[in-house]
Amino acid sequence: MVEEFLNLVTLEEALRRLLDGVSSVEPGIEGIRAQESLGRVLAGDVTAPEDLPGFERSSMDGFAVRAADTFGAGEGQPAYLEVAGEVPMGKSSDLKITPGRAVRISTGGVLPEGADAVVMVEDTEVNGSTLEVNKGVAPGENIVERDEDIRGGTLLFEKGQALGPAQIGALVGLGIMEVEVFRLPVVGIISTGDELVPADEVPAPGKVRDVNTAALCASVVEAGCRAKSYGIVEDDPDRLLKASLEAVSGCDALLISGGSSAGVWDVTVDVIARLGKPGVLAHGIHLKPGKPTLIAVCDGKPVVGLPGNPASALAVFREVVAPLLSRLRGESQGALAGRHRTIEAVLDRSVASTAGRLELVPVALREEEGRVVASPILGKSSLIGTLARAHGNIRVPEGSEGLSRGGRVVVELLE
Amino acid sequence: MVEEFLNLVTLEEALRRLLDGVSSVEPGIEGIRAQESLGRVLAGDVTAPEDLPGFERSSMDGFAVRAADTFGAGEGQPAYLEVAGEVPMGKSSDLKITPGRAVRISTGGVLPEGADAVVMVEDTEVNGSTLEVNKGVAPGENIVERDEDIRGGTLLFEKGQALGPAQIGALVGLGIMEVEVFRLPVVGIISTGDELVPADEVPAPGKVRDVNTAALCASVVEAGCRAKSYGIVEDDPDRLLKASLEAVSGCDALLISGGSSAGVWDVTVDVIARLGKPGVLAHGIHLKPGKPTLIAVCDGKPVVGLPGNPASALAVFREVVAPLLSRLRGESQGALAGRHRTIEAVLDRSVASTAGRLELVPVALREEEGRVVASPILGKSSLIGTLARAHGNIRVPEGSEGLSRGGRVVVELLE
Repeated sequence: MVEEFLNLVTLEEALRRLLDGVSSVEPGIEGIRAQESLGRVLAGDVTAPEDLPGFERSSMDGFAVRAADTFGAGEGQPAYLEVAGEVPMGKSSDLKITPGRAVRISTGGVLPEGADAVVMVEDTEVNGSTLEVNKGVAPGENIVERDEDIRGGTLLFEKGQALGPAQIGALVGLGIMEVEVFRLPVVGIISTGDELVPADEVPAPGKVRDVNTAALCASVVEAGCRAKSYGIVEDDPDRLLKASLEAVSGCDALLISGGSSAGVWDVTVDVIARLGKPGVLAHGIHLKPGKPTLIAVCDGKPVVGLPGNPASALAVFREVVAPLLSRLRGESQGALAGRHRTIEAVLDRSVASTAGRLELVPVALREEEGRVVASPILGKSSLIGTLARAHGNIRVPEGSEGLSRGGRVVVELLE
Repeated sequence: MVEEFLNLVTLEEALRRLLDGVSSVEPGIEGIRAQESLGRVLAGDVTAPEDLPGFERSSMDGFAVRAADTFGAGEGQPAYLEVAGEVPMGKSSDLKITPGRAVRISTGGVLPEGADAVVMVEDTEVNGSTLEVNKGVAPGENIVERDEDIRGGTLLFEKGQALGPAQIGALVGLGIMEVEVFRLPVVGIISTGDELVPADEVPAPGKVRDVNTAALCASVVEAGCRAKSYGIVEDDPDRLLKASLEAVSGCDALLISGGSSAGVWDVTVDVIARLGKPGVLAHGIHLKPGKPTLIAVCDGKPVVGLPGNPASALAVFREVVAPLLSRLRGESQGALAGRHRTIEAVLDRSVASTAGRLELVPVALREEEGRVVASPILGKSSLIGTLARAHGNIRVPEGSEGLSRGGRVVVELLE
């Protein structure tokens, strides 16, 4: 056990090795309906097939005019025009704007021929068929050009773009009803340990319920992937190898949450070494909780060995597995990649930490006199009860020996 | 049209009226499997039925000892104990620790009778059956008490707690396999406007594809609710009333994205007034984009009229509808409620704004020399193409006339 952790690496280094190890992995591709693509990632660039809106539209309720007819108009010095009809919604019309004339138009209406601007209804008064314009407009004012929203032929989205409501809106607005997206990665999950019983069984003395299968499956789903559980495997090299081979062949990534004993740990290392090349890339991380973590890539499939302790396993999931899954989902790794949701808070108690390792401290948040206050949760950070009551983590960096009461901290929210 | 917006309210006030209007709404309850409860919200308090871990466990690989036997031990001044066996994993054992004796134990192993601490393996050396302890331990060191993680009989979670991986882990760890959660709210969606055609049709001249149905359905799903589309309804009071009555009776909330013309707007106001009491609570918000927004509660059902313009509709969804849906999901409204994911950035161009209204400016983000730089997206904020290319929004408050180039801004990330 001791020797295994002689070569601990930083979290950053562990992550670099893991992501480098899967850099040539290309996720599969499938075609799906744009309206059902929420959260999916584009597998290729998308070009706009046509202009949006496709015709010159009014962006206001008012009157389509020739801007030149309103030049110089102002309060007390109105321009007078003749109202020559109304643009019907959703139709093109034969109406033409000739000098001195205006046409009533609604937001979204087709700008009639001859008009080059729209006067807002708020800036007008109508008397019979006479329009009084109290504020002049410039050419182009209050209209949307036919290609102003999206220009046909231009690049709309790049490969790796995740699709949210706005992206789906732009796609269907252009009539793109099908998109090519990356397949969702399937993540295999194995819990190991002689002390584990399935969560729905009553544990005999010395046994505990398997928490990691449920907690890691939920984490995988939350990360936008598919989870596939391979159940509990005892501390037996042959069984673990068999289950791991099955999982590696049926999944895009494998998470083995380690039995907590040193023996199981050794077994896991041996098994991973037999799953494929290059095998183990890092063994132990300067991270609390989460030190006993194994990083491996076996014949192109990433394998992460997580601590058996559930709270530690979830911390490693957040720090190591979540960025891996983002990569496997095909998401482009822009400025935002891997950013946690954060909130600034004031610490209500000092936190001691050991220099030389990154420490994640669970905190509860409350609002007090308009300020957000973060209170480190008493109790070991490795306990699931502690984590389940936390609203977020604060990060005590490797070089630090702790944080002071009253100091401002950035809290990473747990979702 | 003009008169309708004489009584604009601030976003804060609109939201207050809406949430007050639904304060007595109690969502329905259903029982589901804890392992399938990700993202759901507890409908009642949950008490721990038993202690976790349920027995005294080692939290380290090492040797179970009587702490008193190691007092004063240090490097060069070891304590010597006799190794009297090993605790088997996942079983209770008959081993007893008497003075001068130690027993090998793995992380998670049952602490044997007589022991009150564990010496870490790193702090020991073994020669035959003799254990050399190079660092003394205090009573309780490196062990987890039987109720230290979660104490049986204590309140584990309060009603309104959203369930993530850690909470699900705590539940199954205690053998709680079923939970009572609030039913997912069903949100009805109606698009109105004579100019709209279904997204999969080719629009005739003057028509545009219906973007809002797809974009709002995706937003509702992203907010953890169920979306139910009632399609496109023309600018006809009777048809809109019929569709709205059907939606209000079949859903927990209704979103009507307004036709863009003034006529339709009037129709929507009239229809909402006929859906139930108290009806319209606010009409127009000091918000850009998003001014033409209707806030209503009709016989206990919230109804929001959103601008027909898709980008404006999505802005109103984020600012008004998302907090409403969080409330309808039964989420407790703690310090974190409604917090957007944010990132600090430097603005690369000045932004002008009109004082007196809150303005949301879409920005693209990039990394430059280790800094995050936010670039306001050129083009009207009301265009879907603009929003679809944005990574986030910056918020120019009501009292401000703009933001300066080079200034630090908080960017709210669009997901």
